[in-house]
Amino acid sequence: MIINAAQLCELLQGELIGDGEMKIYGPSQIDKGIPGTVTFLANPKYEEYAYSTEASVLIVARDFVPRTPLKASLIKVDNVYGAMMFLVEKFSKNGIPSPGVSNLAQLSSDFVPSTDVSIGAFAVIESDVTLGDRTIVYPHVYIGHGSRIAEDVVIYPGVKIYPNTIIGQRCIIHANAVIGSDGFGYRPDENGRYVKIKHVGKVILEDDVEIGANAVIDRGTLTFTKIGRGSKIDNLVQIAHNVTVGEDTVIAAQAGVAGSSSIGNHARIGGQVGIAGHLQIADRIEIQAQSGVHTGKFPEGSRLFGYPAINYNDYLKSYAVFKQLPEYMKRIAELEKQIAALKGESL
Amino acid sequence: MIINAAQLCELLQGELIGDGEMKIYGPSQIDKGIPGTVTFLANPKYEEYAYSTEASVLIVARDFVPRTPLKASLIKVDNVYGAMMFLVEKFSKNGIPSPGVSNLAQLSSDFVPSTDVSIGAFAVIESDVTLGDRTIVYPHVYIGHGSRIAEDVVIYPGVKIYPNTIIGQRCIIHANAVIGSDGFGYRPDENGRYVKIKHVGKVILEDDVEIGANAVIDRGTLTFTKIGRGSKIDNLVQIAHNVTVGEDTVIAAQAGVAGSSSIGNHARIGGQVGIAGHLQIADRIEIQAQSGVHTGKFPEGSRLFGYPAINYNDYLKSYAVFKQLPEYMKRIAELEKQIAALKGESL
Amino acid sequence: MIINAAQLCELLQGELIGDGEMKIYGPSQIDKGIPGTVTFLANPKYEEYAYSTEASVLIVARDFVPRTPLKASLIKVDNVYGAMMFLVEKFSKNGIPSPGVSNLAQLSSDFVPSTDVSIGAFAVIESDVTLGDRTIVYPHVYIGHGSRIAEDVVIYPGVKIYPNTIIGQRCIIHANAVIGSDGFGYRPDENGRYVKIKHVGKVILEDDVEIGANAVIDRGTLTFTKIGRGSKIDNLVQIAHNVTVGEDTVIAAQAGVAGSSSIGNHARIGGQVGIAGHLQIADRIEIQAQSGVHTGKFPEGSRLFGYPAINYNDYLKSYAVFKQLPEYMKRIAELEKQIAALKGESL
Repeated sequence: MIINAAQLCELLQGELIGDGEMKIYGPSQIDKGIPGTVTFLANPKYEEYAYSTEASVLIVARDFVPRTPLKASLIKVDNVYGAMMFLVEKFSKNGIPSPGVSNLAQLSSDFVPSTDVSIGAFAVIESDVTLGDRTIVYPHVYIGHGSRIAEDVVIYPGVKIYPNTIIGQRCIIHANAVIGSDGFGYRPDENGRYVKIKHVGKVILEDDVEIGANAVIDRGTLTFTKIGRGSKIDNLVQIAHNVTVGEDTVIAAQAGVAGSSSIGNHARIGGQVGIAGHLQIADRIEIQAQSGVHTGKFPEGSRLFGYPAINYNDYLKSYAVFKQLPEYMKRIAELEKQIAALKGESL
Repeated sequence: MIINAAQLCELLQGELIGDGEMKIYGPSQIDKGIPGTVTFLANPKYEEYAYSTEASVLIVARDFVPRTPLKASLIKVDNVYGAMMFLVEKFSKNGIPSPGVSNLAQLSSDFVPSTDVSIGAFAVIESDVTLGDRTIVYPHVYIGHGSRIAEDVVIYPGVKIYPNTIIGQRCIIHANAVIGSDGFGYRPDENGRYVKIKHVGKVILEDDVEIGANAVIDRGTLTFTKIGRGSKIDNLVQIAHNVTVGEDTVIAAQAGVAGSSSIGNHARIGGQVGIAGHLQIADRIEIQAQSGVHTGKFPEGSRLFGYPAINYNDYLKSYAVFKQLPEYMKRIAELEKQIAALKGESL
Repeated sequence: MIINAAQLCELLQGELIGDGEMKIYGPSQIDKGIPGTVTFLANPKYEEYAYSTEASVLIVARDFVPRTPLKASLIKVDNVYGAMMFLVEKFSKNGIPSPGVSNLAQLSSDFVPSTDVSIGAFAVIESDVTLGDRTIVYPHVYIGHGSRIAEDVVIYPGVKIYPNTIIGQRCIIHANAVIGSDGFGYRPDENGRYVKIKHVGKVILEDDVEIGANAVIDRGTLTFTKIGRGSKIDNLVQIAHNVTVGEDTVIAAQAGVAGSSSIGNHARIGGQVGIAGHLQIADRIEIQAQSGVHTGKFPEGSRLFGYPAINYNDYLKSYAVFKQLPEYMKRIAELEKQIAALKGESL
């Protein structure tokens, strides 16, 4: 949605003071306004920004009277905050494709489009794939043979889905994520060369899962890798083969979970965390960014930190000492000197 | 391959008990069976799962007699384990494209397809590229000018290969990996602004290399970045410019190797490991996940851990003390008190 | 550019001794020469390599006389180093597309190509997008609605740009990078389920920014994520929503910056570094690879290391003690024993 200030004013049933022709691309914050955006002044304590903001349009209350001239055009409305929420909702629809199947997509001859599905240019859909109603497949998406994708899913440009993947309702998969690649599994032969272990399992994303850009979810070896309902996986995360993630768990950017581990429900895993393979991580575990988890022994609700990870507060206490170690070591040397002296005296 | 239970039974020359129409998408494990899969009961100690599994078809021995009714259809065979191995091999062929060049691919006018090559829709092959026999190029792959790719290579959807890349026989490159991007090299000019260093080298993948999804291998500055025969690189790994990796080395997910380092043969590098630039890492080095390697001084076969990495056992011993540091520091304070007391006495 | 030795010789106005038909794909270093490349001998101390190099062509000074026969063809020139610089510049143009819009690209009906723009096959350009003169859009690139891209920008294959992104002059974006994906923002509802926070902000890349392969820059929530003029972001880096990076800052591979943090000018951030959210990092900060920065309190020009990061030298000093901790702890035990003995004596 790109509209001009006059059209914006009409949408908001407001009163425009200033240039109505200016093109508006989206919203911004009043203290970080940039040309081509609309911002708002709801809280009087930010009034100073109204005079300096680079935003092109400023939404204000009906009774707002500027103390000095403004660079921005004004739109006066009854409810500033409500107007802004309305616009955020509007702009969030920006660039969302309409239903319809591009004639530049490559569809398997057995593919039957469901109601109001959208398939973009240069998407590829292999055989035996089903897509639910209203699901959006952006350009450059690849959906492998036998995959079953439910309703209201959004698959952003460049996502690659290997065969037999199962994706639940309302999942969102961001650009260039890869779902279902082979696990990193090899066995050495008699000469120490690696022989690839076949991966014939699948990936299951339950309902309401979101997967970040450039994240990778490997398929199961024989069975499945599963992300539970409502869990959110950030950009550049690695989920290895046979891993299961519970429900309502969040895993921040660049974290990695090694093969065959399971993570509970309502866990919070920080960025760049590493979780070793074959562990069972309890529910509601909270893991500080960059920690390395080498054991599943921590009980439900634990908060972890460190490398290897221990309890959060224990790590902080030990690290506080770590920072003082050179000084403590001097104290040990001093003690040794004094004891030597005492021993000399006591001879 | 999607077949029904009756067809599956015929493939296995077995005896079907139950519904023959049910569609089967792949295999699963008996304790993690899901509808639409076939599983097997080879070891009697897992018999309890036979009654609870959600798998649609269960392969059992000819003499198996269920104690209570089963949800799954049964296929009785002479050799349960052999039947399952046969099916895993069959299903591993799932979705592999047939030979042939898509008329939706964009091929340079000088391109000559070799025998039984497969090139998918929307693939782009630039000028002066050669592909070996039976090589598979999935949709959305880009192969830059002058690249030479050998026989039996598999390049998954979305892989981007920069110009002049050399790829050996039987290499596998997973979806959205990038091969041959510019190294991260700049020199500051007189005003402290960075000037890009031209990268005109290449990437060489020797035979039997596998590269994970969304991994990146930068090209050499003047010469090459090379991954040695049989080495395996996991998802989201970063290999910087001019790096050489030896033969039969494995590098797990999200690890990174900085510019101009060399890694030996038969090394095992854990996930999220970082290796600094300009190091020479010996053969058969084993590096624990998340470690940071700042020196190449460790001899062949060393096992490393820590940040910076030291010998594995040394790190564990020091870390065991680290966890107790607050208590040890109390002991130092107590010693100081006692010495002060003793000194008082001895005055 | 692939030329034969004779053409190469003509370009350099040199004298060829040897096979003129051999195809040359690029340059190499004399000690790492490979067939199909041209290398050079400028410094006499590397002369031994002239006899062993695998390079096909060797550029030497006019007066060079080999002591023994050479495998490589020779090209004799007046200025060896200048010839090599000339060739590096030539080869760096390798595979760069010519101006022109592919008829296999999908362009919005409102798109107006600018002068000498290049748009590759299977690129998608949505509505309300502008591209500056001489900008290169490789195949498989997606440019979302409302994006404004300036002059002389290079966008490598597979890059995905979400709506409303702003990209300055001479930016370079490497293959499969994602610009403008949603931030990782959710609020828990009354049942502890995560509700997605709408992201309607944008990404701004100022002039002369370079973004590495498979890197991800999330869009702002309401306002913007910004990378300042001349800053360089390496492969697989994560920049979260609302982050601002200053000018002339370098961020090495696999580093991550969490939401709403700001980083100053001329900072140097090592590989795999993690920076927590909502911090303000001063100018000219230098952060050692893999460090975790949890506070913005460090003054301009600080050098940091550790997890959490502290001053570089302090970390090294503490870590030096850390490595000796088991021995120090024995010294504490010994002190305790001696004190006990002394106390026994002094009773």
